[in-house]
Amino acid sequence: MPRYRLLIEYDGTPFAGWQQQTDCESVQGALQDAIKKFSGERVSVRGAGRTDAGVHALGQTAHFDLTKIWDPFRIQEAINFHLRPRPIAVLECTAADPGFDARFSATKRHYTYRILCRRAPPVLERNRVWWINHELDSDVMAEAARVLSGHHDFTTFRAAQCQARSPFKTIDAMCVARDRFEIRIDVSARSFLHNQVRSIVGSLKLVGDGKWTIGDLDSALAARDRTRCGPVAPPSGLYLTHVEYGNIISGDDESDEDEE
Amino acid sequence: MPRYRLLIEYDGTPFAGWQQQTDCESVQGALQDAIKKFSGERVSVRGAGRTDAGVHALGQTAHFDLTKIWDPFRIQEAINFHLRPRPIAVLECTAADPGFDARFSATKRHYTYRILCRRAPPVLERNRVWWINHELDSDVMAEAARVLSGHHDFTTFRAAQCQARSPFKTIDAMCVARDRFEIRIDVSARSFLHNQVRSIVGSLKLVGDGKWTIGDLDSALAARDRTRCGPVAPPSGLYLTHVEYGNIISGDDESDEDEE
Repeated sequence: MPRYRLLIEYDGTPFAGWQQQTDCESVQGALQDAIKKFSGERVSVRGAGRTDAGVHALGQTAHFDLTKIWDPFRIQEAINFHLRPRPIAVLECTAADPGFDARFSATKRHYTYRILCRRAPPVLERNRVWWINHELDSDVMAEAARVLSGHHDFTTFRAAQCQARSPFKTIDAMCVARDRFEIRIDVSARSFLHNQVRSIVGSLKLVGDGKWTIGDLDSALAARDRTRCGPVAPPSGLYLTHVEYGNIISGDDESDEDEE
Repeated sequence: MPRYRLLIEYDGTPFAGWQQQTDCESVQGALQDAIKKFSGERVSVRGAGRTDAGVHALGQTAHFDLTKIWDPFRIQEAINFHLRPRPIAVLECTAADPGFDARFSATKRHYTYRILCRRAPPVLERNRVWWINHELDSDVMAEAARVLSGHHDFTTFRAAQCQARSPFKTIDAMCVARDRFEIRIDVSARSFLHNQVRSIVGSLKLVGDGKWTIGDLDSALAARDRTRCGPVAPPSGLYLTHVEYGNIISGDDESDEDEE
């Protein structure tokens, strides 16, 4: 069966998350409904990251199969037509190799978390950032981020309901940058545990607040104890920005999960 | 009476514009209502730019008077509290000199216009950009923008209902820049005619489309004829970003109008 690959942007605000659910509207469900409308086929769309309710995507990647061969550009146009007025858009559709799997072939996932630090509430960026109504020390947050980079047991920073077999993950890069009132945290890894980025950001925020030292963050990580995590950051600031494919490292067991 | 100066951000989408109206919600009206709620005083808030329905502001500046002296920070907090859930926020409130006038003292206004050029509709930037579903030549638009810089009779680029006494304005700077799928047009002038920026952007878009040459734009300007203007660009892409005060040039007649 011909396989198609999608590059997808969405505003996560009105959705119960990526994953299809019976009672609420999901991004996956909306895409599957749109595909049914133009093709008549009920397909399963598999995404690289199972983003939570309220989490956004600038570059989610997904795949699905159709029995019929279609022009990929026509698929993109038809899905976008039937998605309206939902805030989801297919940015690209391409024919994919039958071996391509948006979830299992992904070799790197990039997330960005945006924090707006100012007294006044966000207006143009409402539902697009985590609003903190006071200053945070982004320099010390940047230093603290280094503690979490690399290969660790992230038990402290995974949701209780996380279904990953192993709590070990490798954070390839984590960068904390400041632009006026905004702090932007970029994180990349082959894959992430459930709520890993939001748990990390929630704890980094305590460091930026001066409530935790970098040593506190270090010992929270070392404790491998979920109760030691800071309050999980809200979904509104989180974006799945980009998914990479290729250069698969054999024997790596971190490939198949990604739940933010 | 003590005078206060406000720096204001708003999402123009749900408003009938800056200016108070009887039947529709305006930004000015919402601010005046919020001030009434905490102070008990019915004031008139005067803004630097009378933005149209759907036009946004990152840095609108306004002033108003109260009979009582208040701590400016408390004013900011009280207005923001009473504005909720409307997408307007006071970023700063300061005590102002009695001679300060947000509209008449302004010496430079900066607007930015954002165009998103891509096949897929905007999602995270819905109501924040002008969506063009095909490519525009931003290099030729940048060259064309030079035609409009400087002192000109902008009759072609002013709304029929514009009430300014003179059609002459001086555009100090106009810059067209590209960042991937987005074209950003920054324009600054002491003041603008009604719909001047949107009229200019609508005509520059025709140049970017290849429908007009730079010569066509030049002759449209020279014609001083409203019917020669391209279709006016939608309000969703326009932002009043910043207003400057100080260094007033005496004898300049362009100070008192600004309607976008």
